[in-house]
Amino acid sequence: MTLPESATIVEMLPRDGFQRYPEFVPTDEKVEIIDALSETGIDEIEFTSFTHPEAVPGLRDADEVAERIDRRDDVTYRALVPNDIGMERAIEADVDKVNALVVISDTYREKNQGMSLEENLEQVRNIVEMAEGTGIEVEAGLGTSFFCPYEGRIPLARTRYVVDRVLEAGVDEVTLATTMGMADPSGIMETLTSVYEHHPNADVGVHLHDTNGMSLANTLAAMQCGVSRFDTSVCGLGGGTILPGGLGDVGNTPTEDLVNMLHDMGIETGVDFVRLLAVAEDVAERLELGTPSHALMGGTREQVLEVAGGESTTD
Amino acid sequence: MTLPESATIVEMLPRDGFQRYPEFVPTDEKVEIIDALSETGIDEIEFTSFTHPEAVPGLRDADEVAERIDRRDDVTYRALVPNDIGMERAIEADVDKVNALVVISDTYREKNQGMSLEENLEQVRNIVEMAEGTGIEVEAGLGTSFFCPYEGRIPLARTRYVVDRVLEAGVDEVTLATTMGMADPSGIMETLTSVYEHHPNADVGVHLHDTNGMSLANTLAAMQCGVSRFDTSVCGLGGGTILPGGLGDVGNTPTEDLVNMLHDMGIETGVDFVRLLAVAEDVAERLELGTPSHALMGGTREQVLEVAGGESTTD
Repeated sequence: MTLPESATIVEMLPRDGFQRYPEFVPTDEKVEIIDALSETGIDEIEFTSFTHPEAVPGLRDADEVAERIDRRDDVTYRALVPNDIGMERAIEADVDKVNALVVISDTYREKNQGMSLEENLEQVRNIVEMAEGTGIEVEAGLGTSFFCPYEGRIPLARTRYVVDRVLEAGVDEVTLATTMGMADPSGIMETLTSVYEHHPNADVGVHLHDTNGMSLANTLAAMQCGVSRFDTSVCGLGGGTILPGGLGDVGNTPTEDLVNMLHDMGIETGVDFVRLLAVAEDVAERLELGTPSHALMGGTREQVLEVAGGESTTD
Repeated sequence: MTLPESATIVEMLPRDGFQRYPEFVPTDEKVEIIDALSETGIDEIEFTSFTHPEAVPGLRDADEVAERIDRRDDVTYRALVPNDIGMERAIEADVDKVNALVVISDTYREKNQGMSLEENLEQVRNIVEMAEGTGIEVEAGLGTSFFCPYEGRIPLARTRYVVDRVLEAGVDEVTLATTMGMADPSGIMETLTSVYEHHPNADVGVHLHDTNGMSLANTLAAMQCGVSRFDTSVCGLGGGTILPGGLGDVGNTPTEDLVNMLHDMGIETGVDFVRLLAVAEDVAERLELGTPSHALMGGTREQVLEVAGGESTTD
């Protein structure tokens, strides 16, 4: 059991977070926040979704955001594309990478996307084809990889089947998503062990919502299987389906909590944690989120040592 | 890397939680809550602390609580005892087990307990001696086993030294506590691997506060080293030192979140989760805690499936 020496952080706030936020975040604010995120040392930002404006009104300004943000050479700017129309807009907007979503659970996909698995896979193949020659990388994000609110635990063979198919389609990387945020470390290990067994050289990441509070434990389990790419969201904004009674309404893994854990463990991320925490505080204030992460609530080792007047021996 | 088939849950709410709660929880309510906890299938309850009433006013009714609770044969009733006076009261109260606290960090211990390590160890030896022939088991809870707000990361050799000394003193079990709630999975693994290497047959548990949100990840790491005994608190009430600016004020690992994770992983606890969740809801309402745990906020797999109208395939 080994842990990676470094990890890649993919910031999801501008897409997963703003999409979910109950009010429209003004374009000016989106651009300011994305530009601030670009300066934290984060590797990759999913900065918007090229979706029909009526389907996701919170991101109806996707093209304008793409045009106005300051792009750094050392940051990968990724966008979600649900279909070939979205892919056309993504090419027009000159993104570095697209996230083509595939939902594994038939019930969940039919309810939310209104299509069959074959139709969904056909879209991915189209997107891969359209990306050829553009320099745009394609990632497949696999929704409900572990648990579906309608079907329960997703059989391992089903997840494996979809992973096989999207890799066959020629995507550059695949990301297993919890969607409902109800995966557990044993399930994560079982699935990832099987995926790596069949695709030892695949670029596999995880996107772990935190409905059940296990996302950092799931991250640890995923790292132990060989994963070193993680989708997270500043302040934990975003997350999966909200069900009646507010069930599921918890959110994403907060980026600042994940980076704090990785740094405490001696795993490099390239992120300037002080800058990241400043962005998280700014976002929490702008969007009135309170103190939505443990790093913002409880502080970090360095802050605790400073306040207590102690001397750090944590290096 | 193996995981245990079953785990022992030690419920800390009546001691760690009520001690920290800003108001005095009336004795009647304490007794009702402890009795309800006894019916959940939890193995062990740290139900009070026999401390000087001025030092811990929230638990000044320790002797009355001990007398009034309904004790089940299959539950271990444990109490914290800081010294031989506390131990006399614990013997008088006919507890099953006592928790003798030893603080590893010199700075933290001197600030909070006002004594040296040798004085602290001498207390433990006295408590062990007093326990002889009474049938009372002695557990040593080791505060600041990983990180101290004044000294930073605690050197592994220091924690190992104190573990060696309390085991020499004849305690039945030892529990490594995070106190500040700022341990990380790598630190947990490093320390526990070393402890088991030197004491392969020792009964070792962990008490993980959740200031940094890593307590479930730390629990997973501890299980992978061989630990299967966990101190947690319903609703996450309790926790470590609160520093200026509110740093550290986050809490304990919520019992309902830990049990939810263990059950999802197929690890048995003997806990009736539905009953446990009902106690957590009752405690949250009585003490006006809002929705302090992920299980209460986001729901469990079973609840999600019920609300979504799905069929469980999770057993």
